Amino acid sequence: MSKRKSMSIAKARKEDTERLLRQVGEMVYEDLDNGKFPTFTLSSRSVKNIVYDRELQQFVLGSATVRRSSANIKHIRPFTQLLWLAYFAKKLVDEKRTSTLRDVYYSAQAFNIEFVDQAESDELITDLEVLIKRAREDFNIYPEERSAIFGNMIIEYTVPGYEGKRLDLSSHPDGVMIGPALTTAEFVETDAEIVLAIEKGGLFTRFVEERVHDRFKAILVNTAGQPPRSTRYLLRRLNQELNLPIGILCDADPWGAHIAMVIKSGSANAAHLRELTTPSAVWLGVWASDIIKYKLPSDKLTEIDIKRVYELKQDPRYTEKMWHDELDTFLKIKRKSEQEAFSRYGLSYIVDKYLPEKLELMKSI
Amino acid sequence: MSKRKSMSIAKARKEDTERLLRQVGEMVYEDLDNGKFPTFTLSSRSVKNIVYDRELQQFVLGSATVRRSSANIKHIRPFTQLLWLAYFAKKLVDEKRTSTLRDVYYSAQAFNIEFVDQAESDELITDLEVLIKRAREDFNIYPEERSAIFGNMIIEYTVPGYEGKRLDLSSHPDGVMIGPALTTAEFVETDAEIVLAIEKGGLFTRFVEERVHDRFKAILVNTAGQPPRSTRYLLRRLNQELNLPIGILCDADPWGAHIAMVIKSGSANAAHLRELTTPSAVWLGVWASDIIKYKLPSDKLTEIDIKRVYELKQDPRYTEKMWHDELDTFLKIKRKSEQEAFSRYGLSYIVDKYLPEKLELMKSI
Repeated sequence: MSKRKSMSIAKARKEDTERLLRQVGEMVYEDLDNGKFPTFTLSSRSVKNIVYDRELQQFVLGSATVRRSSANIKHIRPFTQLLWLAYFAKKLVDEKRTSTLRDVYYSAQAFNIEFVDQAESDELITDLEVLIKRAREDFNIYPEERSAIFGNMIIEYTVPGYEGKRLDLSSHPDGVMIGPALTTAEFVETDAEIVLAIEKGGLFTRFVEERVHDRFKAILVNTAGQPPRSTRYLLRRLNQELNLPIGILCDADPWGAHIAMVIKSGSANAAHLRELTTPSAVWLGVWASDIIKYKLPSDKLTEIDIKRVYELKQDPRYTEKMWHDELDTFLKIKRKSEQEAFSRYGLSYIVDKYLPEKLELMKSI
Repeated sequence: MSKRKSMSIAKARKEDTERLLRQVGEMVYEDLDNGKFPTFTLSSRSVKNIVYDRELQQFVLGSATVRRSSANIKHIRPFTQLLWLAYFAKKLVDEKRTSTLRDVYYSAQAFNIEFVDQAESDELITDLEVLIKRAREDFNIYPEERSAIFGNMIIEYTVPGYEGKRLDLSSHPDGVMIGPALTTAEFVETDAEIVLAIEKGGLFTRFVEERVHDRFKAILVNTAGQPPRSTRYLLRRLNQELNLPIGILCDADPWGAHIAMVIKSGSANAAHLRELTTPSAVWLGVWASDIIKYKLPSDKLTEIDIKRVYELKQDPRYTEKMWHDELDTFLKIKRKSEQEAFSRYGLSYIVDKYLPEKLELMKSI
C-alpha cells in the first residue's frame, strides 16, 4: 500500500468551525459593548440571488444580503433563533456530540426557543450555514439517511471514545456505513486509484463480490439513490484530500443522470456551500446511448420522465455537450434502463466488460 | 466477555437450502423418469388461506394448495418460471453470490425466461419460498435497503473471500451495515444481555455516543424505519441462537407501533415463513401513554393516522390488552410524538431516564 496522509485535516476543520461559531457570539457581545443592537448580515438565498458559476461548475449566491437586526421587532424572532442555533451548534462541537435536523427542532424546546415546525428550524440551520460559510456536517448536524463505502483504505476516527482507533474499509463486505464517525475520520492509507460512486446497493454488493476494489484499485461508495449530503461531503474529501478521481454509475434515466450531476455540481439549495460538490467527477454511465450500444433491456419513459428531461435541458448545469447529447438521446429513443439490466448478459458482465470500457474512457478525459 | 457459540448454524442453514433446492430438480427428474408430467404443489397464498395463529403469534398459511402442472397448458409458464428460478437460486447458493429482486428480473432474460415485469418475478420468488419453505435470504436474494448494527459482539463471515475473518461489531461507531455478509455471519462471542431495535438513525447514533452498548450491555440495531426483511431475519437469529431478549423503540404513532408489531409477529405477506418473526420481542415504546406520562412535545394525529389506528384495532395481531389499550390512548389523546421528542429534556435524557425505566419493565415481563 502506498501511503497518502491527510492527518489532522479533519481536526483542523473542526477547530475552524469552533472558531467561526465563537465569532458569532463575540460579534454580539461587541455590538452590545458598543451600545449597538446586535445584527447578523448574511447572503440572501432568494431565487434571484442564486446564480450558476461556470468556473466553479456549481450554483453560488450573488451579492444580495439580508439583515437580522435585534433593533427591528419583526427580526427579533429569527435573530434569537439564529443566535440560539449558533450556541447549540457550538455546544455540539465542544461536546463532540452529533444531532439530526429533527433533533434540533425538539432540542430548541428545552431552551424555550420556538419553531412553528421542523421546516422552520431546517431553514434556520441553513441560515447558520450561510452565516459562517460552513456545512452543517461541520457543526455535527447530520441527516437520517446513510450510505456505505468499501475498499482498501485505512481510516482513523476523530469521534470521542474512538480517537486514534483505525478501521480498514475492506473489513466489512456489506460496506461500511457513512455516518458522522466516518465523515469526520482521517484518511490514513490507501492503494486506491479511483472512487466509484454507485447508485444502488445491489450493484455495490456485486462489485464487492467481484472484487472490483482489488482488480481496479477502486474505493466503492453506495450512494443509496440520490446521495445524502454527508456522502457528497465525503466524496469531495476523497477527491480533494487524496486527489482521487470520482466516477459515477447510475441508472440510465433522467433521475440517474441527475444523481451524477448533483455529485458533480451540487444543488441550488446548497448554493451557499462549496463543501458538497466535486466538479471533476465523471458520469460514467449508464448513458442513454449505452441502452442502444449494449442493447439493454429497457422500459418506456413515462410522461413524468420526459417532463424531467425537458427540465434538465433548461438547467444551466447541463450545458456541456456530452450531457446535452445524452438528454437528447433519451428524448429520441424514449427508453430508460437500470444498472441491473446488464444482468441480461450474466451477473459478472457489468464488471468484466462494461466497467473496463468506462474506466478506459475516464483515463482519456 | 462471556462466550456464546453458534458456529456452523449459518453454514448448516446454507447446506439445508442447497439440499431443498436440489430436491426441486430431483422431483422433476423423478416424474420424467416415471413417464409423468412434472408438477409442483405449494400452499396457497390467497387471502382466504392466510390465518392468524395465536400460539405462534403470526400469520400462517392454511391447508389449501395450488398446483403448477406441466401437463396443463395454462400452467406451463409459471411452472417453467418456478423451475428456472429454483435453478438460478441453486446457482447463487453454489457460487456463493448474492442477488436482488431487481437483478433476478433481468437475469431471467439471459435465459430467455420471460416475466412481464418485476412484480411477476417477485411473485415467483415468493412461490419458491413457499415451495421449499425457506426465506429468500437463505437462497441469497436480498433487498436493496440496509440497516445497521452496533455492539460488543464478534462475528465470523461465511461469504467467499471472507470465510473465517472476524469483525467486532463495535469497530465502527456509525453502525455496521446489515447486508448479505452480516446476515449470514456466525455469532462468535458477545457479552450482550439484550438487543435494542431502534427505528431511527439519529437515535441509534445518540445511543452509540452515550455508550448504551457498554452501560446496558446492549446490541443496538438501527431498523431504518420499517426494517427490511433481512434485518428481521437477523433479529430473530439473535433471539433464537443467542437467547437474547429483543426490545423495540419507535415513534409514538400507529406507524411506529406497527414497526414493533411486524418485528414481533411478521406480516401477512410472509405468512408462509417462520424466519422473520420474533414472538418474544417487546415493544418498549414510545407508547401513546408515554406522551402523557413524559409530557412529550406532540403533534395532532392526522386523519390518515386515525384511520390507521382503527385498522390496527381490527388486526388479529393487536388483540393483547396492552396493545389494544395503547391504540385506544392514541384515539383518546389524538396526539403523536417522535423518539426525538425526548430531546426537549436535553440530549441524554432518553438514555439516562427513559431507557432505564423501560428496561426495568422489560425484566418484569
